[in-house]
Amino acid sequence: TPAAAMASTKGRAPFVSLLSDFGLRDPSAGIMRAVVSAICPEARIVDISHGVDKFAIRDGALLLWSAAPYLPVGVHVAVVDPGVGTARQGIAIQTARGDYLVGPDNGLLRPAAARLGGITAVHLLEEPRFALPDISSSFHGRDVFAPAGAHLAGGTDLEELGRAVDPRRLADLEWPRPEIRPNHLRAQAIYLDSFGNVKLSALTGDLETALPGLRFGEQLLLRAGGARSGRDLRVTYARTFGDVPEGAPLLTADSYGRVALSVHQGSAADTFGIELDSIVDVGRAAPPARPAAPPHPAAPPR
Amino acid sequence: TPAAAMASTKGRAPFVSLLSDFGLRDPSAGIMRAVVSAICPEARIVDISHGVDKFAIRDGALLLWSAAPYLPVGVHVAVVDPGVGTARQGIAIQTARGDYLVGPDNGLLRPAAARLGGITAVHLLEEPRFALPDISSSFHGRDVFAPAGAHLAGGTDLEELGRAVDPRRLADLEWPRPEIRPNHLRAQAIYLDSFGNVKLSALTGDLETALPGLRFGEQLLLRAGGARSGRDLRVTYARTFGDVPEGAPLLTADSYGRVALSVHQGSAADTFGIELDSIVDVGRAAPPARPAAPPHPAAPPR
Amino acid sequence: TPAAAMASTKGRAPFVSLLSDFGLRDPSAGIMRAVVSAICPEARIVDISHGVDKFAIRDGALLLWSAAPYLPVGVHVAVVDPGVGTARQGIAIQTARGDYLVGPDNGLLRPAAARLGGITAVHLLEEPRFALPDISSSFHGRDVFAPAGAHLAGGTDLEELGRAVDPRRLADLEWPRPEIRPNHLRAQAIYLDSFGNVKLSALTGDLETALPGLRFGEQLLLRAGGARSGRDLRVTYARTFGDVPEGAPLLTADSYGRVALSVHQGSAADTFGIELDSIVDVGRAAPPARPAAPPHPAAPPR
Repeated sequence: TPAAAMASTKGRAPFVSLLSDFGLRDPSAGIMRAVVSAICPEARIVDISHGVDKFAIRDGALLLWSAAPYLPVGVHVAVVDPGVGTARQGIAIQTARGDYLVGPDNGLLRPAAARLGGITAVHLLEEPRFALPDISSSFHGRDVFAPAGAHLAGGTDLEELGRAVDPRRLADLEWPRPEIRPNHLRAQAIYLDSFGNVKLSALTGDLETALPGLRFGEQLLLRAGGARSGRDLRVTYARTFGDVPEGAPLLTADSYGRVALSVHQGSAADTFGIELDSIVDVGRAAPPARPAAPPHPAAPPR
Repeated sequence: TPAAAMASTKGRAPFVSLLSDFGLRDPSAGIMRAVVSAICPEARIVDISHGVDKFAIRDGALLLWSAAPYLPVGVHVAVVDPGVGTARQGIAIQTARGDYLVGPDNGLLRPAAARLGGITAVHLLEEPRFALPDISSSFHGRDVFAPAGAHLAGGTDLEELGRAVDPRRLADLEWPRPEIRPNHLRAQAIYLDSFGNVKLSALTGDLETALPGLRFGEQLLLRAGGARSGRDLRVTYARTFGDVPEGAPLLTADSYGRVALSVHQGSAADTFGIELDSIVDVGRAAPPARPAAPPHPAAPPR
Repeated sequence: TPAAAMASTKGRAPFVSLLSDFGLRDPSAGIMRAVVSAICPEARIVDISHGVDKFAIRDGALLLWSAAPYLPVGVHVAVVDPGVGTARQGIAIQTARGDYLVGPDNGLLRPAAARLGGITAVHLLEEPRFALPDISSSFHGRDVFAPAGAHLAGGTDLEELGRAVDPRRLADLEWPRPEIRPNHLRAQAIYLDSFGNVKLSALTGDLETALPGLRFGEQLLLRAGGARSGRDLRVTYARTFGDVPEGAPLLTADSYGRVALSVHQGSAADTFGIELDSIVDVGRAAPPARPAAPPHPAAPPR
């Protein structure tokens, strides 16, 4: 796994990644970098994305989950925080891989934590000396999360940040789960990337469970928008874009192991009018020879 | 203050921040980073924002002012430079906190300089050996400002860059000043952030002066667009977003100490049709018990 | 040249630049940075741009060509890769200046290579131990190019990456060449920057060849959209923006030595309705005293 390849941090400058819904026009993301650099000058700081949809915790969680296995072991600060200034708490999660995930306790960090081996400890961000002297009511990314992350990167013990929390008491997100039936997968569009690829709430294994014996090159029937919408589209289940002509649709495993609908050198979202949360049904043009496997529960995030 | 917490730079790699109106599609911002890194390879480089509105000196000055207290002591290169290639001069400002601010002499740097303790020296960027060999007429960010900033970060003395300038002779910006009257604050919208929060040309102290005894939870009357526009809106003066229901408007002190109009998990700019430079009047629903304080002059930037 | 000024890398941390059409909303660009940092933790990583138009190899090649002379000698990873997952190969190019250019063999890297002194060697990216363990079919930026670049930055020999390739067998791009006739230059709009400056497929030398004796301040006639479009526009051939009034058009040598049409503090693209690939004809209002030079072949990229 990429994680294993990157798991040794001996002698390396600490790694801090940042993710938020702040965008890059406002100075917020740059200020977070500056705060990390002020507290931990030796940190290697990498922005994963600051383009998460505003207030979209699930969107941020998905991007962090996508990036996690490719990040060096380190501190990952994520801020999509519609509840800033309320009773929701700031937390730092330790993962089995050795990372710290820092941010609000609103479900944002959990899928990435699961992907980094699972949660081994959680502490609240309570100790004022690991925050900025003045904590605003609306920008904890700057005042609480970036400082806590930078102190962890600089060697502060997790326990010093505040009281331990039972991981089972953390807030969680509802993830749309794919429905797996014989020769039928129903999923939702959970992310439309900037190329117009439609990422579904199903992993490759879900598709293989629903359509056993599925092979590259096979034609599938796809309906976007739920059962009451228009006609079925024929799409090719393909290994990669180049396996279909330009402008043709394809269903693939994307580079994160997620089922995605694409158009070769085009935008599937635009071509098929698919929006975030659209229902997408996938079936076979002709039933396979052998019977379908039973439904299979899927692990988040989907 | 954050400044005090970050003021020690001993033994740390030099810090260089960058701000411009170049955007991130063109390679200009990346080239500035590369030039800094070429001249001062050990620099920690942080982008504050390259999304300043084109040619909007005041906008850039405001973002730099906002970020300044959170930046490590270092060199801050800012380029919003509609006068590039004309007689306007390039300058480096030394601040009382120990920073250098580098950019065009058009007012861009002065609010941040004031916030970093004030100006202690200014020198022109005249010496060719601290610029690139060929200086274009349209990209001084690359050819003059980034190199000068990188040389300062690398240890070059300010005096070596060029002649000293009397700080009183620097160009300045006109800042819209809030009008403070008994139970009435008139200000302008000076920045609409990417969440739709409307930042006003008034600091929290101005609001408290205009509306003495103001308390969180109090209802205020707000009119956007000046006296001739439509009806007054009721907004809550609140400590933070979570103190009002989702979709409700609130007036707050933002995380920079500036008065801001917001909508909880919504866009105040969109909700109320407020544009940059819109006049915003704030008053009380009912007059307070004790008389208002006299008008109070406000320090830029507002 | 800037290159000469930056050519010494002794004792410096290795420099890695990144360029792509991934945008900054998706996590792809951040993941590439993380992968580089994981493999080569000491690397100085600079993003040139991730805003290249989707699939626009020529656009990416132009931005890389523009930035190249200002980048420290190092490794430059560029990914505009519509053919990912097909037979097109990944390559690493060594330049005479001492850089490595890493990306797909689709023409993207060649103009920058030419500007960095020319190609001295090319090797395929074949060796699995310099890629991530699992290579997806759609994200070679993460799985192949960033790892190869990071290994080169860390000291891996070019020869270890894979077999050598004859540079003459590399894929190339078609660049629109300017037509140079007596007192007439015909070029195409090849890039519209974020200020609305229209970059033409002609370098300053081409303009001087077409219009011998051209002097700053001279009035030129310009027609956008080809011979059949509307009337000629009068524009000033100017050294810089400030040489014409605000809102006035000018033709200049841009900061990269390329002919550009601009409007002082405005957008030439918007003002004149010029789109990417529009034909632009430039001539003199009055013919010069001495005869024009013969047509002059121009070197890519234009």
